[in-house]
Amino acid sequence: MEEKMSRCFAVIMAGGSGTRFWPESRKKNPKQLLNLFGGSKPLITQTLERLDGVVKQDDAIIVTGRIIRDGIRKALPGVPAGNILLEPVARNTAPCIGWAAVHVLKKDPAGVMAVLPADHHIADVGAFKKVVNTAIEAAGSGSIITVGINPSRPDTGYGYLRLGSEKSAGVREVEAFVEKPDASTAQKYLDAGNYAWNSGMFFFKAEKILAEIKTHMPDLHRGLMDIGAVAGTDEEAAVVEKVFPTLPEESIDYGIMEKASGICAVTGEFGWSDVGSWEAAWELAGKDDEGNSIQGECIVAGSKGCMLRSSSGKTVALVGLEDVVVVETGDALLVCRRTKSQDVKKVVNELKAQDRKDLL
Amino acid sequence: MEEKMSRCFAVIMAGGSGTRFWPESRKKNPKQLLNLFGGSKPLITQTLERLDGVVKQDDAIIVTGRIIRDGIRKALPGVPAGNILLEPVARNTAPCIGWAAVHVLKKDPAGVMAVLPADHHIADVGAFKKVVNTAIEAAGSGSIITVGINPSRPDTGYGYLRLGSEKSAGVREVEAFVEKPDASTAQKYLDAGNYAWNSGMFFFKAEKILAEIKTHMPDLHRGLMDIGAVAGTDEEAAVVEKVFPTLPEESIDYGIMEKASGICAVTGEFGWSDVGSWEAAWELAGKDDEGNSIQGECIVAGSKGCMLRSSSGKTVALVGLEDVVVVETGDALLVCRRTKSQDVKKVVNELKAQDRKDLL
Repeated sequence: MEEKMSRCFAVIMAGGSGTRFWPESRKKNPKQLLNLFGGSKPLITQTLERLDGVVKQDDAIIVTGRIIRDGIRKALPGVPAGNILLEPVARNTAPCIGWAAVHVLKKDPAGVMAVLPADHHIADVGAFKKVVNTAIEAAGSGSIITVGINPSRPDTGYGYLRLGSEKSAGVREVEAFVEKPDASTAQKYLDAGNYAWNSGMFFFKAEKILAEIKTHMPDLHRGLMDIGAVAGTDEEAAVVEKVFPTLPEESIDYGIMEKASGICAVTGEFGWSDVGSWEAAWELAGKDDEGNSIQGECIVAGSKGCMLRSSSGKTVALVGLEDVVVVETGDALLVCRRTKSQDVKKVVNELKAQDRKDLL
Repeated sequence: MEEKMSRCFAVIMAGGSGTRFWPESRKKNPKQLLNLFGGSKPLITQTLERLDGVVKQDDAIIVTGRIIRDGIRKALPGVPAGNILLEPVARNTAPCIGWAAVHVLKKDPAGVMAVLPADHHIADVGAFKKVVNTAIEAAGSGSIITVGINPSRPDTGYGYLRLGSEKSAGVREVEAFVEKPDASTAQKYLDAGNYAWNSGMFFFKAEKILAEIKTHMPDLHRGLMDIGAVAGTDEEAAVVEKVFPTLPEESIDYGIMEKASGICAVTGEFGWSDVGSWEAAWELAGKDDEGNSIQGECIVAGSKGCMLRSSSGKTVALVGLEDVVVVETGDALLVCRRTKSQDVKKVVNELKAQDRKDLL
């Protein structure tokens, strides 16, 4: 029996450059800094606020890119500047989490890390907190914990966890991490009942994940030890500048989770979405009786299932439309069939091909 | 046999306030001043240029509203200022044509008027000119001539002319003016073969139409005589200001054409359209292989049958769309299912209800 909960640090992975929400998302203003739902706050702000009462703002560590440092400071004014770790280059999640781990270890050798993507949506914060508390407790006992989402549909856009026996109350063994399935496989997973969506959220002690990195990714571990020796000092930036680009570019899933043994999962249902497209944003947004989500001055005539986001003050009229997304910014306008919103990346690719840095 | 063609005056009816092309068309910039087809000129400019070699610019009379006087001057720099008749209020086409007639009569007692809407599209100018010459000749002999379009489809959006026997080469008797039909009636007209679309273009001598007005609209005639007494003088504006609002608000079709006897028609096929909606503008516009008509900086991804008109310099992306019209101006944006573009008037009505003068 635990005497008290371990001290928990939030490690928020905020490196994404989010091209799927163009024209709102840009290199300097990626998805995690967007307010995708009317009246709410940037996704990264929501991510940290969800842990109120569990993690102190002083114990939040943000790993991100230099280009959005100012945006992060603005979105998270309560987080100390020294807790914002700026990657000189993006090297995927394993180096990102490893770097955060050496910081946590220095602050508290017994510290637990709650590793969270910056840009997910969670509808039921109460239910989420229950999962978090279970996960922190299990992680404090030395386990590596993933968070699984009980699937509500045969989604082909997520990776899955195959779950085994219960290890303790609410904590089940993970038998395997499985890739995004095709439609019929996804249906099988749903029918089988022992699969959960891999949410990309992890809980573990810093010392535990560093031990696993030492075993499975020794090159990464050596680089992290170099950084760890100067973590929190004036020398760190220079060492990171030199070492970070040499670290293996690898995800924590592939580099550690799929190789380590004894990984467990806490599962739940708390209205989770990774908000992967304008379509997903529409699904999560408040809508009128016609299924329209309108932000900005708008006249709607005979239209349904539409989303408008206009910040220009321009009057917009939607006439006779069904399932269309309109997003207007100062320099760009997207008009997109809602169900084709994953193709926004084609627009971004075309802008890259045209070297349109002004629009990226 | 005519010794020479009568002197022909163009009377261009440019009073329309065109709400169907919002957000481009506004009270101060109605349809007749728009360039609806890439690379071309305003519709009213095209209307007059089509008569090159038939009507001198000095013999063009424009009847319009005061609010667009400057726009008309700019679109028709070759037309003398004194030939632009500014209605203090719109009273439909009979007073408009009557006022022009008293001006023509003063310039040439034998003058023929070619009365033309300012905002139609004609694809085959050569074929149109042949019709015009036939119509001028017949009008010079004292006939009232309407121009009929041989119908290519059972259109329910136009009035029809029922045609009788041939009176002279290319000139047929008009047995009746018939209202816009329903779909099955339109099909009957098409099958019958002796119906033509009423184009709204008329040819007659000024003295002839004034005589018909005297017979069928004596109130209008009295008012026109008051104006005619001072036409072309400094006093005219004041007399018009007083008299014009008292004239009967009536169309030339209802007030004269449907009542006078001996009306004839010259018919033809010259790619005529009254360009009644964004849909019609799309039909007439140049399009790429996917049926898209694009004006402005645009990235098109998997879209077809669309029209974009953007003048802001903004980059527009059209993703996964079919048959959508996007029109962007400095202060407004329309996104409309192409086949619902007649519903743009609902938007304008809503703006009127909101008293949004800035957008009307």
